[in-house]
Amino acid sequence: MFKEYDVIVVGAGHAGCEAAASAAKMGSSVLLVTMNMHTIAQMSCNPAMGGVAKGQIVREIDALGGQSGIISDKTMIQFRMLNRSKGPAMWSPRCQSDRMMFAQEWRDTMENIPNLDFWQEMIEGLIIKNNRVVGVRTGMGIEIKSKSVVLTNGTFLNGKIHIGEKNFGGGRTGEKAAHGITEQLVELGFESGRMKTGTPPRIDGRSLNWDFMEEQKGDDNPEKFSYTNTPKLTKQRSCYVTYTNEKVHEVLRKGFDKSPMFSGRIKGLGPRYCPSVEDKINRFADKDHHQIFVEPEGWNTVEMYINGFSTSLPEEIQYEALTKIKGFENVKMFRPGYAIEYDFFPPTQLKLTLETHLIENLYFAGQINGTTGYEEAACQGLMAGINAHNKVHEKDEFILKRNEAYIGVLIDDLVNKGTDEPYRMFTSRAEFRTLLRQDNADIRLTVKGYHLGLADENRLERVLYKKETSEKIVKEIKNRKISPDDANGYLEQIGSAMLREKSSFYSILKRPEIDIEHIKTLDNEMAEYLRNFDEEVIEQAVIHVKYESYIEKELLMAEKMSRLEDLNINPNFDYERLHSISIEARQKLKKIKPQTLGQASRISGVSPADISVIMIHLGR
Amino acid sequence: MFKEYDVIVVGAGHAGCEAAASAAKMGSSVLLVTMNMHTIAQMSCNPAMGGVAKGQIVREIDALGGQSGIISDKTMIQFRMLNRSKGPAMWSPRCQSDRMMFAQEWRDTMENIPNLDFWQEMIEGLIIKNNRVVGVRTGMGIEIKSKSVVLTNGTFLNGKIHIGEKNFGGGRTGEKAAHGITEQLVELGFESGRMKTGTPPRIDGRSLNWDFMEEQKGDDNPEKFSYTNTPKLTKQRSCYVTYTNEKVHEVLRKGFDKSPMFSGRIKGLGPRYCPSVEDKINRFADKDHHQIFVEPEGWNTVEMYINGFSTSLPEEIQYEALTKIKGFENVKMFRPGYAIEYDFFPPTQLKLTLETHLIENLYFAGQINGTTGYEEAACQGLMAGINAHNKVHEKDEFILKRNEAYIGVLIDDLVNKGTDEPYRMFTSRAEFRTLLRQDNADIRLTVKGYHLGLADENRLERVLYKKETSEKIVKEIKNRKISPDDANGYLEQIGSAMLREKSSFYSILKRPEIDIEHIKTLDNEMAEYLRNFDEEVIEQAVIHVKYESYIEKELLMAEKMSRLEDLNINPNFDYERLHSISIEARQKLKKIKPQTLGQASRISGVSPADISVIMIHLGR
Ligand SMILES: Cc1cc2nc3c(=O)[nH]c(=O)nc-3n(C[C@H](O)[C@H](O)[C@H](O)COP(=O)(O)OP(=O)(O)OC[C@H]3O[C@@H](n4cnc5c(N)ncnc54)[C@H](O)[C@@H]3O)c2cc1C
Ligand SMILES: Cc1cc2nc3c(=O)[nH]c(=O)nc-3n(C[C@H](O)[C@H](O)[C@H](O)COP(=O)(O)OP(=O)(O)OC[C@H]3O[C@@H](n4cnc5c(N)ncnc54)[C@H](O)[C@@H]3O)c2cc1C
Repeated sequence: MFKEYDVIVVGAGHAGCEAAASAAKMGSSVLLVTMNMHTIAQMSCNPAMGGVAKGQIVREIDALGGQSGIISDKTMIQFRMLNRSKGPAMWSPRCQSDRMMFAQEWRDTMENIPNLDFWQEMIEGLIIKNNRVVGVRTGMGIEIKSKSVVLTNGTFLNGKIHIGEKNFGGGRTGEKAAHGITEQLVELGFESGRMKTGTPPRIDGRSLNWDFMEEQKGDDNPEKFSYTNTPKLTKQRSCYVTYTNEKVHEVLRKGFDKSPMFSGRIKGLGPRYCPSVEDKINRFADKDHHQIFVEPEGWNTVEMYINGFSTSLPEEIQYEALTKIKGFENVKMFRPGYAIEYDFFPPTQLKLTLETHLIENLYFAGQINGTTGYEEAACQGLMAGINAHNKVHEKDEFILKRNEAYIGVLIDDLVNKGTDEPYRMFTSRAEFRTLLRQDNADIRLTVKGYHLGLADENRLERVLYKKETSEKIVKEIKNRKISPDDANGYLEQIGSAMLREKSSFYSILKRPEIDIEHIKTLDNEMAEYLRNFDEEVIEQAVIHVKYESYIEKELLMAEKMSRLEDLNINPNFDYERLHSISIEARQKLKKIKPQTLGQASRISGVSPADISVIMIHLGR
Repeated sequence: MFKEYDVIVVGAGHAGCEAAASAAKMGSSVLLVTMNMHTIAQMSCNPAMGGVAKGQIVREIDALGGQSGIISDKTMIQFRMLNRSKGPAMWSPRCQSDRMMFAQEWRDTMENIPNLDFWQEMIEGLIIKNNRVVGVRTGMGIEIKSKSVVLTNGTFLNGKIHIGEKNFGGGRTGEKAAHGITEQLVELGFESGRMKTGTPPRIDGRSLNWDFMEEQKGDDNPEKFSYTNTPKLTKQRSCYVTYTNEKVHEVLRKGFDKSPMFSGRIKGLGPRYCPSVEDKINRFADKDHHQIFVEPEGWNTVEMYINGFSTSLPEEIQYEALTKIKGFENVKMFRPGYAIEYDFFPPTQLKLTLETHLIENLYFAGQINGTTGYEEAACQGLMAGINAHNKVHEKDEFILKRNEAYIGVLIDDLVNKGTDEPYRMFTSRAEFRTLLRQDNADIRLTVKGYHLGLADENRLERVLYKKETSEKIVKEIKNRKISPDDANGYLEQIGSAMLREKSSFYSILKRPEIDIEHIKTLDNEMAEYLRNFDEEVIEQAVIHVKYESYIEKELLMAEKMSRLEDLNINPNFDYERLHSISIEARQKLKKIKPQTLGQASRISGVSPADISVIMIHLGR
């Protein structure tokens, strides 16, 4: 009934879709198996993509030739560049999405990929031969063979939904949980754990009084995620901001004794940085209000997502608390919020390719690795899909370094440090965040994507042009000079220090108060010259001028680090010989089998002294 | 958390959506509760609306002010008027739908109805007080009050899915079954039964060889369902026709010993007129091929529905059999076909308003009443919604007679005859099918819809214009005459008998070989006159000219019948007194409590002699 596939992907969430798309586009024959073909790329929680650090990830996925950026662009209803007022390392694209269109667009995209087949069913087990995965077994008992398998089960493995004192099995509201896989993997020697996450109630926008909320419009000049020529938004839908208050908190507190979290019914750890509203008022008891975003679920729907109000308190408490929010007096709910507990596999059991140590050619990606968030899931899917393809076709592993991409940071963190609570990306996790900007993901990654066979010629040309041209512009800005006579009038007018001698535009642009528009006003010829280039390229040049020193500092640091990074460790290296390092370090090293000394240095529990010892044994 | 609603509708299938929409539009406060708001108006089986007799129902729903016609028009990818070559009683509109768009359009429509609220959850019980329903109880235990409840659970009540020897609980593939309601109703004294239906596998259109199939295009000049000004299709997608063959049958027969139907594992009766492919080759063993339609599931998707290949044989048998069909040699399946068994409630327990006899203000509509098909479900939903609203607002019952609408035939059949197998509409079920045409549903029903408060002013004006104008045209055609000299040249040319004397266009148009285009060619003045009217109106006039005698005969018959129909029977009429009628008739009459002598006459088991006895007792 089925041929033997190169790659079988289990689950069609964000991870599964990117995995299947990338492996198929690179030339693998791929089967995507998912429980329900109507829920391909369902956004389980908020209808939004990107955000701080997450937006950078979407840009990176796009730069490599993944789909999430393009699909987000085609289905967004609002776009904002967060943190515009801060340095470019912090600029973070974020969009609201039309939930239905997003899923539909993913489905259309997937159906148009030639090597990609579909099968709708629950997978209940893997077929393993000699510690190597060779296929999957479906709920109906069908065996489908493959050279590799990528598991992306999301929150479905033994998923259990909690609302107040009630709980029931489910992978998402209204959907079944998946059983069998955890049990089999544990039997095979995998360690599994339990995590939880939550979602807010959904409400009827028609029942709200918008006059009492602050409108939050999209950017005036909305950008987008993809470096390709996806269309820009011409109209947008607004979100609204409101706040909880003491009355809301009071009502919520009434439900605490029935809370599945506070009562200990939920064992799994939740995302600390995406806490439920009860968590927030519990942990920050002194704060008398918390912000809430009311976000539309699509272009036309009246359904609203209440960002900031994730909760698993009893539904009548949720309702009563909502009615105490300004503008929510007559609120009507569509469904209550809930918490969900699910199995995950501590990611220290993975290689940097996302292949498991225990079972060859078996890859894990997404929430199953203890992460949270669509973007975190999607990028793992992309990487697992690439590596599964490469392994099957005897090509090199594809690993991104911490100084190359947030994706590199994420996977390096997961594999080396593991995670106790749902792992979410932050800019603070990246040592080199001035290098890992949203504006240069293409410059960092598209050449790689091209060599993988994922990013097409067109992308390559675009990025080469952007790189060369922005460098040219920087050079030009450095070369061209202006005299005090010509400059000082305008500089005085805008309150910037006057020149004493002929100076390069470079030195002027470096001033914090000066932007490229000032330069254009200052000098007609510069204005004329710059008119030849589009905004994106000029922006790239400006960032390089303004942040050159930061960038260079980080480049230096990265280079230092990469010396360790270039020292490979044989996977069969015998750590037992190293009597002088701590037992904990020895155990971790044996388990994680770091591929480089750099990776070894980041394993939690491995000290700099331990690294020196290993270095000596490596003969350095 | 909830106010008391006028009407709660349980289930958002075709029946539930029409019910909720109609009651809300008429002014009731309505809550629609459904298990998953992402599956509102999901087409469970084939992506198509209408067809023989079913298309007439959609037109009737539309004429009354329901939604199904409008939504079908907005989301169709192909339209055909079936049986165009037969008389107008047989003309039946049918469309292929974009499955996703259809559901999305329904959802948008519902969200824009002011009095309509939503709640996503499974309903597990009803709240009953003094044999009257006063609300529902959800899976989480929330009690929601209402003055009436419409149950439209479709195939979900204790739904059980079968594929070969495997079976599992589910209301549709990938969706949960609903429990609790049947059990409670049975406890309350309801009789419940078990039925089954089936669906074919879904396949990947990219794996088919279209060259070996016949293309079936949409109509050249596609019409539509709604009498309102919904847009007409400007492009269409084709379906394809192919056939099973002996090899296919051979493979299928290999699976018979594992068939859940033949082995007796499925207890419920299936739809005789929509049989599974294994049923077909079993019952018609002499036929060496059966027709198969390959129907696209939407504008862009590669997913194909294989109409005519419904099956619950083991999935590998399904697959192997498919590969033996011409053009299917390399077929890839997305998921296998399956059969589903579910609870229904014999509809003899209902009044003609679809209210149950046992529990006041409780209505049943759709598949729960033993019917099959979206159209059958939708029209029941509409009628139940109307009647629930009217009852709550102390307005008259709304019942359609057998000579007024297929909807009337359907409900009358269900209530009086009951059904052992899934009931599907056919033109043969209607005694007055020349009256119940697809072209005049508006003339038959829109005035009623207007008085109900469902069809708007605009619709009323349109229909009054159509009626008056078409009558005027008939009169004109009767009045205007043409001389042999003017006519015979052309008549001879087109092979129609020549005139002997000056004759009316009426007499000429009545000839089978003559259509209105001929009349226009025959006479410039007629052509000029007709140019003032649009096609729909002219067609109406032509039908009246050509089929006048049939129409009048049926009108006469209907009048005769309606004499019995007008004789009301007191619901408390004591049938026990009637010793001279059969025991069976007495029991049935006591149970069904016919509202008129006409209805009594149609109860299966009640003889004409019995009717005479009752008539005497009624004092006639
Ligand atoms: C209630 C809830 C609240 C959340 N809240 C947040 C939040 O506040 N912030 C945040 O960043 N993230 C949140 N998330 C997480 C976010 O939804 C996930 O991180 C993201 O969807 C994970 O993507 P994934 O591809 O790993 O898995 P998912 O999107 O969960 O997709 C898993 C897919 O696998 C399929 N599947 C599972 N098991 C099987 C099987 N055995 N056989 C076949 N198919 C299978 C499923 O049908 C599904 O298609 C929340 C998730 C949920 C459910
Ligand atoms: C596998 C299959 C094959 C079919 N094949 C054919 C065919 O070949 N030809 C044909 O004409 N028809 C066929 N049908 C029938 C057709 O789908 C139905 O007639 C039609 O959908 C019935 O509409 P409905 O509104 O009564 O119920 P459904 O469309 O089944 O909708 C029921 C709704 O109620 C909800 N629901 C159920 N129980 C609860 C509860 N307790 N609480 C809350 N919500 C609830 C469900 O989520 C769903 O939204 C098939 C159906 C199935 C499932």
